[in-house]
Amino acid sequence: MSFAESQSPSSGAVPEQPPPPHNQQEEEDESSKSQSKKAAKKEAAKQEKLRRRQEASLASAAQSLSVEEDDPLSSNYGDVPLSELQSKVAADVREWTEVGALTEGLSERYVLVRGRAQAIRAVGKNMAFLVVREKGFTVQCVVTAQPDTVSRQMVKYAAGLSRESIVDIEGVVSVPTVPIKGATQQVEVQVRKILCVNKAMPTLPINIEDAARSETEIEKALQAGEQLVRVNQDTRLNYRVLDMRTPANQGIFRIQCQVGNVFRQFLLSKDFVEIHTPKLIAGSSEGGAAVFKLDYKGQAACLAQSPQLHKQMAICGDFGRVFEIGPVFRAEDSYTHRHLCEFTGLDIEMEIKKHYFEVMDVVDRLFVTMFDTLNKNCAKELEAVGRQYPFEPLKYLRSTLRLTFEEGIQMLKEAGVEVDPLGDLNTETERKLGQLVLEKYGTEFYILHRYPLAIRPFYTMPCYDNPAYSNSFDVFIRGEEIISGAQRVHVPEFLVERAQACGIDVKTISTYIDSFRYGAPPHGGFGVGLERVVMLFCGLNNIRKTSLFPRDPLRIAP
Amino acid sequence: MSFAESQSPSSGAVPEQPPPPHNQQEEEDESSKSQSKKAAKKEAAKQEKLRRRQEASLASAAQSLSVEEDDPLSSNYGDVPLSELQSKVAADVREWTEVGALTEGLSERYVLVRGRAQAIRAVGKNMAFLVVREKGFTVQCVVTAQPDTVSRQMVKYAAGLSRESIVDIEGVVSVPTVPIKGATQQVEVQVRKILCVNKAMPTLPINIEDAARSETEIEKALQAGEQLVRVNQDTRLNYRVLDMRTPANQGIFRIQCQVGNVFRQFLLSKDFVEIHTPKLIAGSSEGGAAVFKLDYKGQAACLAQSPQLHKQMAICGDFGRVFEIGPVFRAEDSYTHRHLCEFTGLDIEMEIKKHYFEVMDVVDRLFVTMFDTLNKNCAKELEAVGRQYPFEPLKYLRSTLRLTFEEGIQMLKEAGVEVDPLGDLNTETERKLGQLVLEKYGTEFYILHRYPLAIRPFYTMPCYDNPAYSNSFDVFIRGEEIISGAQRVHVPEFLVERAQACGIDVKTISTYIDSFRYGAPPHGGFGVGLERVVMLFCGLNNIRKTSLFPRDPLRIAP
Repeated sequence: MSFAESQSPSSGAVPEQPPPPHNQQEEEDESSKSQSKKAAKKEAAKQEKLRRRQEASLASAAQSLSVEEDDPLSSNYGDVPLSELQSKVAADVREWTEVGALTEGLSERYVLVRGRAQAIRAVGKNMAFLVVREKGFTVQCVVTAQPDTVSRQMVKYAAGLSRESIVDIEGVVSVPTVPIKGATQQVEVQVRKILCVNKAMPTLPINIEDAARSETEIEKALQAGEQLVRVNQDTRLNYRVLDMRTPANQGIFRIQCQVGNVFRQFLLSKDFVEIHTPKLIAGSSEGGAAVFKLDYKGQAACLAQSPQLHKQMAICGDFGRVFEIGPVFRAEDSYTHRHLCEFTGLDIEMEIKKHYFEVMDVVDRLFVTMFDTLNKNCAKELEAVGRQYPFEPLKYLRSTLRLTFEEGIQMLKEAGVEVDPLGDLNTETERKLGQLVLEKYGTEFYILHRYPLAIRPFYTMPCYDNPAYSNSFDVFIRGEEIISGAQRVHVPEFLVERAQACGIDVKTISTYIDSFRYGAPPHGGFGVGLERVVMLFCGLNNIRKTSLFPRDPLRIAP
Repeated sequence: MSFAESQSPSSGAVPEQPPPPHNQQEEEDESSKSQSKKAAKKEAAKQEKLRRRQEASLASAAQSLSVEEDDPLSSNYGDVPLSELQSKVAADVREWTEVGALTEGLSERYVLVRGRAQAIRAVGKNMAFLVVREKGFTVQCVVTAQPDTVSRQMVKYAAGLSRESIVDIEGVVSVPTVPIKGATQQVEVQVRKILCVNKAMPTLPINIEDAARSETEIEKALQAGEQLVRVNQDTRLNYRVLDMRTPANQGIFRIQCQVGNVFRQFLLSKDFVEIHTPKLIAGSSEGGAAVFKLDYKGQAACLAQSPQLHKQMAICGDFGRVFEIGPVFRAEDSYTHRHLCEFTGLDIEMEIKKHYFEVMDVVDRLFVTMFDTLNKNCAKELEAVGRQYPFEPLKYLRSTLRLTFEEGIQMLKEAGVEVDPLGDLNTETERKLGQLVLEKYGTEFYILHRYPLAIRPFYTMPCYDNPAYSNSFDVFIRGEEIISGAQRVHVPEFLVERAQACGIDVKTISTYIDSFRYGAPPHGGFGVGLERVVMLFCGLNNIRKTSLFPRDPLRIAP
């Protein structure tokens, strides 16, 4: 008995049903703290309801399409039945051509393509245009009624497809005499066969072209008296599956992948070992910032705020140089453009022979290599990001600038900005310093080191010549901090002393301190936020743009 | 004012203090469920106390060393003061030689080495031998009293060093006439200078040589009437920082790093994009197995049991092929050799054109490449693991064997093992089948596919020709499952139907189902446990051996 027979309600073309109501309540609860957000969401919910209703009626209209008059060419179009999609054909001898590979060289060739129906336009009853998208490339496909190959019903079917549906198209490549504006590829496909592999709902909550629009375009149109849709950040994130499909987002997350890749490959080439440390830990990992607490089989536990303890243990365990790429959890109530409750930490820890500069040397080589590689290998992705979110390429030196904290304070002072010489910089003064450094040294990437001891974690090694300062550093891109690093205290007795001086109950960190009692080499390391690197390299204004599914105090979905 | 002056109690040589009592209570609570473990731990606690006492007295004895008679050569040895370790010397012009690089070619050369004092032996008052270890390599260093260079006090100082302390040694390389048995390097260093960078406590909770011993050695010694120390798994994990230093563990985690690296590089070369999905999610990720629950800013949340939902969303978001390497959390009460509450998941998801075999093709190429690379690049590490835990190299075919579940059942049946043809295999039958496959096909790595639908998750695509089976597979190494994969249901209406058939409240998974309403390509994927791959490739008997800091129902520390 075949599957289709036994499960008749779903056999053949999947019957359209009105989708279940979206879980709006949950989202509203989520934003209860923010009144303006709540209002925006209510509005969105209303629009959503309207859409759902409209869609239900469109769906039933679409269904009537299948009750079409007899057509001897009907095998050339239609919805692929479910059973066909269940791995029925193992050895597909047909060759697939990627949309991005459709060029003049394939003129007159018969091709098979799979992609999304990005745009659909009927011209009378005899012609329909489809723009089909695959991996960011688009091609114009033309369905023209003609005897013996393409019926008028097929044109009607094509014109009735919902946008973002997945289609398999067969046809002949042709080169038009005039340039094609609405697609990346400069050829057309004269369609012979069009099968819908998966239907999108008729009305999407957000349209890709709206989501892909730049502020400049919206402003320009407004000046010309036209109001274009602006998709706000929250709506994008609610429908991330659609939002991800914009060229900018395709670019952002491919760049993110490259950042991780360069980080890893560079470190592996320098004898670092990749480790995986636990995210479930007993007690709070660093003290200070808020942690997510949970019950672990009856024991109190929390989520790691950093792999600090365990990466240092790996150094004490003789791995010499280690790194980790993994999630980091912060239960902070930070509602800024640069904080997330969960982000991807790039962490390293390494033995040092003599000086914390050895760690800064790694920062320098690693990031110059990374920026070089991104500019070289991600040119297309960077361009796609820049089209929607214009930015200037990052200015950085071949050898990274190093300033002491004191020098930084002095620069600010000379510019008329008074800051506490032993206090921390705030977002504003960091930006200001970034500006001054850019003017004086021509770089937007630099290291600030010898921070005041009082504003660093207890395990930071104080400077040998002045206990008010420490062997620590922060690294900045475009005036914002991306890296924090330091030499660590590796002498257990001194670590106890430092913890006590910082008001930490030594008993709560006994596991950490004990790790250094079995012989510990001098060492240091740093942590980087992956999302921040991508955000600042691309000059983006919000970290939610560089996290696939961001988590902040108001958002834990989707 | 220099740091040393202002913090006099810690200036110069760090005074030894008896270490604070180890947090034994916590460990005892942890094992309350297991009586035998509790007894073992009590015994360990007792021994620990004895050690601490012994150590305190040794420490005070060691301190008396520093109150030594005047020695004109005293600058050639001693403890490096803390201030010197605080990045005092930036430009260290001296060249360091790695222990592994100490070969005959360096004969008569003056070298500088940093490593651990692995073994220390005094011969009378004029001579001491040190075995110094760095990155798994060891070299014998000889301190011989002689006029104008090495004083008897220096010999005494060297002999009094505690094992596992970090030392800087300067000396001349010499080639002895007889082979050296107790070290990997076949040269000696005639010591001119020895400085202790960091002291280990005089008596360590476990000795590296004990932790590095194989069962075979212990058995052999026992037959010869000698009882050698056997360090049990729990003690190892309690003192993981020490346990990590054994050659086998150094090998295991470098192999683990290579597994991750090959996984990543292979997939990147095949157009996969690396993604990072959230571990904090609202609701349970898959239903079924237990989840760790937590409070997320007033909302109920849990830790992701897999990146299933989000990696599929990335596919619906047009990334085509994605992978992720990240922690996976399971709150299961599994006390087996192969389950952890937190492990590193290697997950992939990809569009398929026609058939789930496309996913199995990736498994095949990926793992054959991985095994080849490990055998080629990790020969030394595999040998180190094998010395302590002997194993046969994995047998695998150039093209991975594929059997259907039905064929597997038939093989078992023919061997007299009756199993439910539509039920799941248990650990025992999996092992048995692995044995039969090895005998018949000569491979310990194979794919079993077309599993019964009833025993797979609701989102698994049923077979087109028989709804009792599914387009799914498991992959086995040495008779144990390491991979689970399948084609997914990408049609939302059918997904709802499948969820309902499996008794799942559709409302709880609305976000998941909605992801497929905006046009979803056919797709499939699989998940692998990193720790299992390493465990089974190396033929190890416990997954705790391949997790740096394992988490199981009884363990959340260190």
